[in-house]
Amino acid sequence: MNTQPELAWNDVPVCDTFAEAFTTVGTRIIVTAISESWVRIAATEVTGYATSVIACDAEAGVEKFLSPEESPDGRPGVSLMFFAFSRSALEKAVTNRVGQCILTCPTTACYAGIPVTDPEKALALGKQLRFFGDGFQISKKWEDRRLWRIPVMDGEFVCEDRVGSFKGVAGGNLLICATNQSAGLLATEAAVTAMQAVDNVILPFPGGIVRSGSKVGSKYSALKASTNDAYCPTLRAETNSDLPEGTGCVYEIVIDGETFDDVQQAMCDGLQAATQLPGLLQITAGNYGGKLGKHHFHLAEVIAELKRR
Amino acid sequence: MNTQPELAWNDVPVCDTFAEAFTTVGTRIIVTAISESWVRIAATEVTGYATSVIACDAEAGVEKFLSPEESPDGRPGVSLMFFAFSRSALEKAVTNRVGQCILTCPTTACYAGIPVTDPEKALALGKQLRFFGDGFQISKKWEDRRLWRIPVMDGEFVCEDRVGSFKGVAGGNLLICATNQSAGLLATEAAVTAMQAVDNVILPFPGGIVRSGSKVGSKYSALKASTNDAYCPTLRAETNSDLPEGTGCVYEIVIDGETFDDVQQAMCDGLQAATQLPGLLQITAGNYGGKLGKHHFHLAEVIAELKRR
Amino acid sequence: MNTQPELAWNDVPVCDTFAEAFTTVGTRIIVTAISESWVRIAATEVTGYATSVIACDAEAGVEKFLSPEESPDGRPGVSLMFFAFSRSALEKAVTNRVGQCILTCPTTACYAGIPVTDPEKALALGKQLRFFGDGFQISKKWEDRRLWRIPVMDGEFVCEDRVGSFKGVAGGNLLICATNQSAGLLATEAAVTAMQAVDNVILPFPGGIVRSGSKVGSKYSALKASTNDAYCPTLRAETNSDLPEGTGCVYEIVIDGETFDDVQQAMCDGLQAATQLPGLLQITAGNYGGKLGKHHFHLAEVIAELKRR
Amino acid sequence: MNTQPELAWNDVPVCDTFAEAFTTVGTRIIVTAISESWVRIAATEVTGYATSVIACDAEAGVEKFLSPEESPDGRPGVSLMFFAFSRSALEKAVTNRVGQCILTCPTTACYAGIPVTDPEKALALGKQLRFFGDGFQISKKWEDRRLWRIPVMDGEFVCEDRVGSFKGVAGGNLLICATNQSAGLLATEAAVTAMQAVDNVILPFPGGIVRSGSKVGSKYSALKASTNDAYCPTLRAETNSDLPEGTGCVYEIVIDGETFDDVQQAMCDGLQAATQLPGLLQITAGNYGGKLGKHHFHLAEVIAELKRR
Repeated sequence: MNTQPELAWNDVPVCDTFAEAFTTVGTRIIVTAISESWVRIAATEVTGYATSVIACDAEAGVEKFLSPEESPDGRPGVSLMFFAFSRSALEKAVTNRVGQCILTCPTTACYAGIPVTDPEKALALGKQLRFFGDGFQISKKWEDRRLWRIPVMDGEFVCEDRVGSFKGVAGGNLLICATNQSAGLLATEAAVTAMQAVDNVILPFPGGIVRSGSKVGSKYSALKASTNDAYCPTLRAETNSDLPEGTGCVYEIVIDGETFDDVQQAMCDGLQAATQLPGLLQITAGNYGGKLGKHHFHLAEVIAELKRR
Repeated sequence: MNTQPELAWNDVPVCDTFAEAFTTVGTRIIVTAISESWVRIAATEVTGYATSVIACDAEAGVEKFLSPEESPDGRPGVSLMFFAFSRSALEKAVTNRVGQCILTCPTTACYAGIPVTDPEKALALGKQLRFFGDGFQISKKWEDRRLWRIPVMDGEFVCEDRVGSFKGVAGGNLLICATNQSAGLLATEAAVTAMQAVDNVILPFPGGIVRSGSKVGSKYSALKASTNDAYCPTLRAETNSDLPEGTGCVYEIVIDGETFDDVQQAMCDGLQAATQLPGLLQITAGNYGGKLGKHHFHLAEVIAELKRR
Repeated sequence: MNTQPELAWNDVPVCDTFAEAFTTVGTRIIVTAISESWVRIAATEVTGYATSVIACDAEAGVEKFLSPEESPDGRPGVSLMFFAFSRSALEKAVTNRVGQCILTCPTTACYAGIPVTDPEKALALGKQLRFFGDGFQISKKWEDRRLWRIPVMDGEFVCEDRVGSFKGVAGGNLLICATNQSAGLLATEAAVTAMQAVDNVILPFPGGIVRSGSKVGSKYSALKASTNDAYCPTLRAETNSDLPEGTGCVYEIVIDGETFDDVQQAMCDGLQAATQLPGLLQITAGNYGGKLGKHHFHLAEVIAELKRR
Repeated sequence: MNTQPELAWNDVPVCDTFAEAFTTVGTRIIVTAISESWVRIAATEVTGYATSVIACDAEAGVEKFLSPEESPDGRPGVSLMFFAFSRSALEKAVTNRVGQCILTCPTTACYAGIPVTDPEKALALGKQLRFFGDGFQISKKWEDRRLWRIPVMDGEFVCEDRVGSFKGVAGGNLLICATNQSAGLLATEAAVTAMQAVDNVILPFPGGIVRSGSKVGSKYSALKASTNDAYCPTLRAETNSDLPEGTGCVYEIVIDGETFDDVQQAMCDGLQAATQLPGLLQITAGNYGGKLGKHHFHLAEVIAELKRR
């Protein structure tokens, strides 16, 4: 890559490059529970172990928490987003995750966060999980939607029949280079906090951050990807480094979203927040030369957007 | 089951029955990070979506958090336990989970929580993940153990080569019957809090609690299990209920542990804590007639143990 | 009081009475910090020990958390409200609290959340705390406002010169009677969660709830107030109880707000949320016969408002 | 001060100076509640606004959380410590704080954490708060201790009659100098985490950290203390700085403890933890020339102790 920074924001050099993201299939479900505390427990369980579709069944995360007023049943809730390679892979992942982590979880209910407009794009949710009710489940109309009331030990698990899906964008990203781990971590956390306030996006990695950036290919033929040595500070002397002088730490934020604009807004807000913290040497983004992913987020455009605000 | 309560503790009726648990394969890993906050993020991500080996790759949970003084590298840490049907299934689950959720997570390191005494029982951890280092990884002796230093963007991911495994006990349980959801939930949460203070056990379900108890079999031939209608309060009029009069809610706690005694201690502490709260009608336990699982935890013995304290 | 319930909401009986609240002086400050975690630490420290102006210097609490986009300086923030008997008591309390808990707290800044329109109603904030700078403090114009930059060990503490105040409403309340402590607690927590989503109000008691309701006067002449024995479930046999048959627990929520309508909206949302939970026997409100406090919140009007939604 | 660093630990320079601490009066109370969540709420409320006895009624903080097994009544608990200038000031502060923040808080109970051995040193707790019961309170013997059962709306507030006090040590400290705010903050947080695991000590400032270090005196005659300009990075050009070249941020940790050894152990553990993080330039400690405070914690002795481990 070796892109020289030609841009800057808040006095931090920014490379004139782009983040390359992919088209993917996504959905959104709303989970409610008796208290915020149980909403959080349900959300972390059902979106756990879902960092990258390379080796997880889905990428998942919290879009936002909902107050009782905002939620479908007047209880505290959360909006969750899930992404996978295909509609069928997504259906399988979401149904199994809801079955293992929400059906089981005290007091929860589960609603569609994407309406079913095209039946071809719908994912079976209650439609499949209802059979757990062993014939005791009851169908319930709710405006033009269908809910299932599945008897469980603490009452009934209310679960919407189906949820819609959409063509989304996976893999928007920022790479934040800092003098050391502390500076890198706090600046990247600041970006994460700002991005989490953006609607329609999730950050699937732990705490929103990934530190094990990878390149395509490896010296071991069985592996398709390996550590991005050009971005490893400890390998500066041994490899062809892309890091600016003095870099002790790099963090990446990966963003999945409903639309191109959603992901770009998150990148804007994240860049703005990170660059207010000390110790940053450069901000850049990851791509594969532009041939693999359909969506290109140019940092020059991100900065132009910030200037327009 | 229809067991009449013949026992009691703190004035709550307790059925003279037993919890039936299974032999399983388990392991323990220690994860450390720069702060407690990042330890918690790593722990929830890597143990997420791991409630039941029926449909998850493993059952997993937090055993306990470690202070810097207690952890292997002087940083805040956490001890995590994982259980699966076989050593190979466990190895696959743990290695993929650590690769997706710890290798990726800012500042973490990963150590064996079970020493490798018998190489046959060891699980490959760093031994497998080191290849991500693309040849730049470095082996490091640590007393008689081997660590891998794998270059990543925030420095190095330190990961122990292998971790031991053990024959553990999965499926210890308590069933708590209450007048309504609120009483059931707070009493069961109290039991969970007490059990979480016990060493060598985890509670794999969300927040430690499962509300979707199941029976073997279903009217739908494709399903091997379905809702335990005898324990569903809303089905009292329609089914052969096992619930005491007035029951509005039942919660189950499932316990996985290193030994029979560990699980039994958790059951003792949980029963003691739950029965201090109001609104309980009965405590019982789940079994399959005693023929499927090797380990039987008799509630009479749990109460006898509490009396001896 | 002995008011018979003549109203109902979600099948829970509601007494046809009113909450009696007082005119008070209030203000709002905005605190920002480097991370959400430090915002929370600052907020809990500065609003601690501030439950009731009877024996604390102020009543204080979190109004709402602010995203970086919503906060004055692009960092995570929180809006805090404080109430006291008089403008001078409020100024003394807020300035001392900010001096002890915000000036001292890593990375924070402090802004007015009420503009200074009338200098007579303004409270000195940075105007007073600046002297800590020992002459090194610097005044900075910010539109038509004035900030002080006070040198501290981690850089500068930015603190607005003055903050406005308003005539507010203190002591809106709901009393929730339940069969037992668990049912009472979860229903009241649900009300608190709903009320916390309402703008311009705070709930000053711990976790938003008070369990030690008091009556005016005492058998001990030195005490002006004592336990409200008519609402103590354990005293039913010994006193003239106002509790419905079967009551095992009562919780009160006290609300302070900017206007009558703000407090009433919180009461509506709280009543709506609480009555969705099981185990409630009655909802009522506390008053002193209507002669002490200027603001009367009639539960009949609260229910009428809920019906209009 | 201008002490040149002549010591070092983990390659971080350490000044050969000492922390100067004062004799004070301290106590410890144990608060329990129905759940960990309510224990935390009670603890933060009752220890809020208690950073420095210069302008708060006490210095207070969490010593440690207790599992149900460790707590006096089989419920989750917390051990809290309070310090003040005199026994009478401490009694007044603790009694008022418990009355406002624990008596009011759902489900809590309050026990002595220091036994009453010498009646002269005892603080009235339930002995005073019981009058809130308006004659309905009941005394209860508990081994050789006395508890009060005070009727409240959620049942009874159990509160021990009296609690002992001790001569403690207030003002142990470490000063951590870093290249920038991020590095300073994470290193100091690491020290705090390590210190919080030490028994018999608290860190009274927000999150354990103070950033507004002060010197005695001020150019304003009314003020007894003002910003320690020699430790303010932004004032390097204008004042006689004590900071090493390149310092962008300094944080202080203040420790109050039961004995000299407790405070010294916390200083050892904190120094050890902080010096594992990047970006530190120097560690030092604050004193007043040694004439004001009786207890001197020499950093040379702290390092000697670390070497002995």
